[in-house]
Amino acid sequence: MFKDVLRELVERTDGAIASLLMGFDGITVDSYSRDPNALNVETMGSEYSVVLGQIKQAASMLDLGITQEVAVQAENMTTVIRLLNDEYFVAMALAPSGSVGKARYLLRVQAGKLLERLS
Amino acid sequence: MFKDVLRELVERTDGAIASLLMGFDGITVDSYSRDPNALNVETMGSEYSVVLGQIKQAASMLDLGITQEVAVQAENMTTVIRLLNDEYFVAMALAPSGSVGKARYLLRVQAGKLLERLS
Repeated sequence: MFKDVLRELVERTDGAIASLLMGFDGITVDSYSRDPNALNVETMGSEYSVVLGQIKQAASMLDLGITQEVAVQAENMTTVIRLLNDEYFVAMALAPSGSVGKARYLLRVQAGKLLERLS
Repeated sequence: MFKDVLRELVERTDGAIASLLMGFDGITVDSYSRDPNALNVETMGSEYSVVLGQIKQAASMLDLGITQEVAVQAENMTTVIRLLNDEYFVAMALAPSGSVGKARYLLRVQAGKLLERLS
C-alpha cells in the first residue's frame, strides 16, 4: 500500500539509501531499503521521531507555523524528513554525496499520495 | 568581531531575515537582524539550541558521525543552522520564499572564519 511510493523515492534519488513512513510515536508504517544490511532505518526513524516532536513544539511556540520539513546533514548520512500531518512523517536517508534537492522535491510531491492512503 | 560576518550572511542572501551565533547553552554570542522588530532571533535560537543538542546526540548514537547542518522549514519561516563545533552554532532565519541554497552555501564558507575568531 505504501511500499511502491517508498521504493520510488529511493530508486529515483541519486545516493538514497532508504525511506520510511512512520508515526510520531516511533512506530513504522512501512519502509524500503536499497540494502537492508547497510542501515536500520527504523531505529534511525524512531530516534528522530522524538526530536521531530520537539521541533514541532518549538516552531509552534515561536509562531513559525506548522513544521513542513527537517533536514539533518551528518558526516556519514543526510536525512530529509517531510512531516505529513500531526501523526505521521516520511523520511529518506542519503549518502553524504546524495541528491538532497531531488529527495526534497520527491518527498514534497509524493506527500499527498501518502496522506491520501493514510486516511 | 562577529557582526560583520553575521551581517554579510543576511545581506547576501535573498529573503534572509536574521543571523545568529550562539552556544549550545542557549547564550547568544552575537546576532544581526534586518528588522529587529520582525523577529526575536535570540528566543528562536535558544529554543532550537535544546533541540540541536538532542539531534547531535541522536546522530552520534546512530553512528552517523558529527552533525554538520540542520534545516527546519516551517510555514512562516525557514531556519538553516550550521554547527561549528561542540560548543557553538550559527543560524540564519529566512522568509519561506528565501534562498535556502544560498544560505547553506554562505554558512558553510563562513563557518571557518567564525570558528577562527571563536578560538
